[in-house]
Amino acid sequence: MTIATDPSQTLTVRQMAEAARRAGRRLGVLPTGQKNAALLEVAASLRQNAAEILEANALDVQAAHEAGLPESLIDRLTLSPARLEAVAADVEHVATLSDPVGETLERAVRPNGLNVMKRRVPLGVLGVIYEARPNVTVDVATLAVKSGNAVILRGGRETARSNEVLVSLIAAALEQHGIPAGAVQVITDPNRARMLELLRLDDLVDAVIPRGGAGLHRFCVENATVPVIVGGVGVVQLYLDESYVQDAPGVRSAIRIIHNSKVQRPSACNALDTLLVTPASARLALPQIVQELQAAGVDVVADAPSLEVLRSAGVHVQPAQPADFGTEFLALKLSVHMVAGLDAAMDYIAAHGGHTDAVLTRDQAQADIFVQGVDSAAVIVNASTRFNDGGQLGLGAEVAVSTQKLHARGPMALYELTTTKWVVLGEGQVRG
Amino acid sequence: MTIATDPSQTLTVRQMAEAARRAGRRLGVLPTGQKNAALLEVAASLRQNAAEILEANALDVQAAHEAGLPESLIDRLTLSPARLEAVAADVEHVATLSDPVGETLERAVRPNGLNVMKRRVPLGVLGVIYEARPNVTVDVATLAVKSGNAVILRGGRETARSNEVLVSLIAAALEQHGIPAGAVQVITDPNRARMLELLRLDDLVDAVIPRGGAGLHRFCVENATVPVIVGGVGVVQLYLDESYVQDAPGVRSAIRIIHNSKVQRPSACNALDTLLVTPASARLALPQIVQELQAAGVDVVADAPSLEVLRSAGVHVQPAQPADFGTEFLALKLSVHMVAGLDAAMDYIAAHGGHTDAVLTRDQAQADIFVQGVDSAAVIVNASTRFNDGGQLGLGAEVAVSTQKLHARGPMALYELTTTKWVVLGEGQVRG
Repeated sequence: MTIATDPSQTLTVRQMAEAARRAGRRLGVLPTGQKNAALLEVAASLRQNAAEILEANALDVQAAHEAGLPESLIDRLTLSPARLEAVAADVEHVATLSDPVGETLERAVRPNGLNVMKRRVPLGVLGVIYEARPNVTVDVATLAVKSGNAVILRGGRETARSNEVLVSLIAAALEQHGIPAGAVQVITDPNRARMLELLRLDDLVDAVIPRGGAGLHRFCVENATVPVIVGGVGVVQLYLDESYVQDAPGVRSAIRIIHNSKVQRPSACNALDTLLVTPASARLALPQIVQELQAAGVDVVADAPSLEVLRSAGVHVQPAQPADFGTEFLALKLSVHMVAGLDAAMDYIAAHGGHTDAVLTRDQAQADIFVQGVDSAAVIVNASTRFNDGGQLGLGAEVAVSTQKLHARGPMALYELTTTKWVVLGEGQVRG
Repeated sequence: MTIATDPSQTLTVRQMAEAARRAGRRLGVLPTGQKNAALLEVAASLRQNAAEILEANALDVQAAHEAGLPESLIDRLTLSPARLEAVAADVEHVATLSDPVGETLERAVRPNGLNVMKRRVPLGVLGVIYEARPNVTVDVATLAVKSGNAVILRGGRETARSNEVLVSLIAAALEQHGIPAGAVQVITDPNRARMLELLRLDDLVDAVIPRGGAGLHRFCVENATVPVIVGGVGVVQLYLDESYVQDAPGVRSAIRIIHNSKVQRPSACNALDTLLVTPASARLALPQIVQELQAAGVDVVADAPSLEVLRSAGVHVQPAQPADFGTEFLALKLSVHMVAGLDAAMDYIAAHGGHTDAVLTRDQAQADIFVQGVDSAAVIVNASTRFNDGGQLGLGAEVAVSTQKLHARGPMALYELTTTKWVVLGEGQVRG
């Protein structure tokens, strides 16, 4: 198990990546049943070794307290018996998901008789960089194994002891089912030099997925020669058309959707940031919407025309500043901006970037135009923005959420951890 | 048309990219018929303005001669009336290809009644960097338009005058059909500073595709913050199993395939570099294969065991040097290496990287193992390596060949210039 962790830093990151590539070659051609059996072994091992895991985690938590780390981070870092059980259950769930590897796409017989097809294969070796949460270590390792990929994890300094134990257990469980330990490795050294080494191994690592704040994503984009799948900042907007709020049930539905989009989990990337209203939809529904949001503790700010509508209705909010638009709040804050109508709303969204954008309208033609014209990872009609989520979209499990367009866009599941190869079957054909 | 070219450098690359993004928003939602009409207009314009194009091209060619550029480059740079007609015909062909934009993938109704689907959409704004050949300017521009993408081209210094005229004509033809001129723009300034600016506009440009030598690809990978699709170096190997050459027809077929793989177009990236033989397949067929290749002017080099087999048969070749393995020759040269059998051949290919790899065998189980175990962009059974080509695989037209795994692998056609977005259609659903 010496290559599963690097506490003594006996291996360079290049050596780890070479071991990953060897392991990936083996893992990439394993039958689904064998990968699933290994995953069930991982789940069993996590349960059997819960005491050891929780002990290591307690040391991480203690060190985090001593270092004065924020409570929110310590909460994400902390494993309880219940949380560990949930992690083990997630591993078992991944074993039930269908295996994308081996799927045949675009089969054709060419005029010269060649049988050509595209076949889905693992990417090979992944690097995943993240912070705090030790459950991510297990989630990502199991999704990588299921999709036939070797993975080099790079967790945060604060979770080094937990990760070391978790990855040792995972690697040992995999080895029992013929998967080399190099398939799942972790860099526990908190120094960015080793992360930088990983980011530049483009001859050995096929993709790097950073999961974390904008600073981490930027560091990867600026420094990597390995292709990076970024999930950076994403703004969420909702356009409320007057057709949706012509009657009391419409107003109630709008309130319910906007409330859910903003309040259900304000720290999520798919939580609403900016509400776009028309003069008519503002007059018909904005005061009630804002009162409901304020009752839920939301800090609402509005541009001058919206403010005016609210003031006339006796609802008081602060004026919005320019920085309140195109900003991902990740908190109980919402900005309101008035536009002339659908086209202006779409122009606004194009100018401010889109991660998840929704429209509430009773006009089918408007909905179609919005769906076609708004270039976001997810476009939502008459529902909460919170549905832009791997589980909610039916993907089963999520390794990260991509906000770029290349390779993967939006929630990334097993399928997004694969690539294709062409297979050409001939009977002696040559090119004329 | 001032934004179509930048001879006077009145625009920064950022300004060009902003214009491209605006144009792309328009282009991305155009109906297929309108894009096709615009492409037919481009083809007509190239024919009508042939004299102007050829005149500008002649100035480029003259300057290239004066600068002492290599004849092979001058040949690629030169447009003749016949070549220009072929370029126009290619544009018309792209108009006949099916449009990937708007295709719906993975439609599902979720338990809460939400209709979710993935829809195929353009990437947005592409940057394509290449050298010499002015036909690439037209090819790439038309493939971009067909797939709904705006594109910023960056051609070589030697083709600046040709590109300026071509892009002006293309942009004017597109404008006649409602496509803003910003949809196709060219950077003619040969300074790498402007290319570097393009490579770092990750807020505006969705992907950069370099087409050229390894040095250009490396420059892009090292410097880009925009995601890069690389096509770097790729080695081509063919493993000859003894089962394929048990009789005279088998030997003749092997000779025909290997000859075609090496000789038909030695400068292509899918031309054979290394032949892997077993002791038995070497004894049965290697002397005849090498004699045929030598007769075609191929410089064959061999490792010691292969050399010994050849010497016994009275065939003389030079001993291979270590650098002759894992090397893309792009010339009439071939290295021969002896392996123990299939597993050793696959280990060799894994160690030397694979672009296109072929196996000649009569053993179906061997073929299956090779297809599954060799991780190349294309794996070929019993046919020429020259079939790893967009046209040969039935893709219709090729914008580049990717040797990376992320997003696109192998020949890139219209489909590879798209991404997806999630569309979620609700009736008031919120997340519980």
